[in-house]
Amino acid sequence: MSLLVVGSVAFDAIETPLGKVDRTLGGAASYFALAASHFTPVRIVAVVGEDFTKKEEGVFRGRKINLDGLERASGKSFFWSGRYSTNMNERTTLATELNVFANFRPTLPVSYRDSRFVFLGNIDPTLQRSVLRQMKSKPKVAALDTMNYWISGTPEALRQALKDIHVLMINDDETRQLTGEHNLLRAAKAVFKMGPRTLVIKRGEHGALMIHEKFIFSVPAFPLEEVHDPTGAGDSFAGGFMGYLASVGRIDEPTLRSAMVYGSVVGSFTVERFGVERLANVTRRELAARARRFSKLTAFRL
Amino acid sequence: MSLLVVGSVAFDAIETPLGKVDRTLGGAASYFALAASHFTPVRIVAVVGEDFTKKEEGVFRGRKINLDGLERASGKSFFWSGRYSTNMNERTTLATELNVFANFRPTLPVSYRDSRFVFLGNIDPTLQRSVLRQMKSKPKVAALDTMNYWISGTPEALRQALKDIHVLMINDDETRQLTGEHNLLRAAKAVFKMGPRTLVIKRGEHGALMIHEKFIFSVPAFPLEEVHDPTGAGDSFAGGFMGYLASVGRIDEPTLRSAMVYGSVVGSFTVERFGVERLANVTRRELAARARRFSKLTAFRL
Repeated sequence: MSLLVVGSVAFDAIETPLGKVDRTLGGAASYFALAASHFTPVRIVAVVGEDFTKKEEGVFRGRKINLDGLERASGKSFFWSGRYSTNMNERTTLATELNVFANFRPTLPVSYRDSRFVFLGNIDPTLQRSVLRQMKSKPKVAALDTMNYWISGTPEALRQALKDIHVLMINDDETRQLTGEHNLLRAAKAVFKMGPRTLVIKRGEHGALMIHEKFIFSVPAFPLEEVHDPTGAGDSFAGGFMGYLASVGRIDEPTLRSAMVYGSVVGSFTVERFGVERLANVTRRELAARARRFSKLTAFRL
Repeated sequence: MSLLVVGSVAFDAIETPLGKVDRTLGGAASYFALAASHFTPVRIVAVVGEDFTKKEEGVFRGRKINLDGLERASGKSFFWSGRYSTNMNERTTLATELNVFANFRPTLPVSYRDSRFVFLGNIDPTLQRSVLRQMKSKPKVAALDTMNYWISGTPEALRQALKDIHVLMINDDETRQLTGEHNLLRAAKAVFKMGPRTLVIKRGEHGALMIHEKFIFSVPAFPLEEVHDPTGAGDSFAGGFMGYLASVGRIDEPTLRSAMVYGSVVGSFTVERFGVERLANVTRRELAARARRFSKLTAFRL
């Protein structure tokens, strides 16, 4: 089924102990769309500046990624620069230049308005809500990502946005901050009251946890010998997760469990190279093989 | 098969956001033995003082726990006091009084010297090694726990002790400190060269990871709505793990995987109440039921 993503398409400068890139395609929507496109066609809503050329466009073209909703504005694209610590467990933001993203008002092309699966990337909750209001009918599954900036800065707008959301995808800290509850099971119950009936907690090197009203599912991160660049792992997870759900077209328990695994699979490839490089060239066969390795990683018999 | 544990039997004073106890039975060997005794007979080697009465002894009696190696010394038992932060994710040690434990020189009763499974709790590596030298023959499985104090303080003695160890059970930080390697897969390879061919990394609320020369296995922590007291969770994990292995008498891959699950199961009960209370009264039926819930927590189909 059709999958829509709204979020940032950006340029990143990244420095990790294993290397450095000065300018590479980044942004949550880029990672998400590339990840999801391995499973299902994706529609992007985002804004880029005049510095976004045929080269960057080429990363999306030739895949099942629709760029009709990619707005071109005068000025420069969103730029982010960051440096990771020796152990990659901390990152310092060196620069955030919103540029054209500062005035981003997502507008859905008419052809997008029937999307059945929607992912609202981490942007102003008022804009996230405006996207849902542009839909012809309520999507089958709406998922939302957010961050501390919006949780503390625009709590009321976030509350409003969450009302129509099925799946909330955030990390441990954000879960605790949003609910004021340290225990994740109790935090999930608080989230359920806000709207979403499914909470997906992204835990980086510790994997991901899904707390659904009816069940809990835990998936580890895939152990890798070398992580080159953690940037985009969470957005790739979200893309793999939503892409798989949209490809199946259902959100029953077995499908949600598998989606968690495919999200982790895709995220584990992303971090193997800088930026979107590995994510863009991973094959279906490699994804399937790693998914089988996740089975081995967690299988036991009592 | 016979399981021997060497370590501390102590009194603990514990304060958590959910309550406080001034003096309760504690120590790694206590948690380990109680946890393991749900699966197999256990032999304790430890030292206690004159303050260890019939009441504390009663916690061990009536179970498959042999106290022939529990030495009584004049003076007071090891005493530890600690306080947990609001979120239980940090703990402050308020007091550590070694007392009779300061002069602990583990001596194995003759009847213990044929033990096939041995767990060397977190004590001076020279003493850990002396225990193995007292054995009639090399045990089938020797496991060892240690900590930063020994890793940095007596690295050579620890290296010597590790040579005859099959399973090293430590946490993330200790793994990184011991090997000087942040990446856990590479750290495991360094550990393999020191002796142990199996590394079990305890990750607290994030579960546990086994890195074996031939496979990797990950198990999550069991999500609980209320943790009363995290003390002893790791030692209970070790007890459940080794107790299960000894009960089966093998260490093939399927048995190691199941042992990881039973370790997590037992640890998850321990933290439900203060001290050893829950660990001491949990039933076989409850352990089996929770093990089945671990299956549901991690199961998926591709």
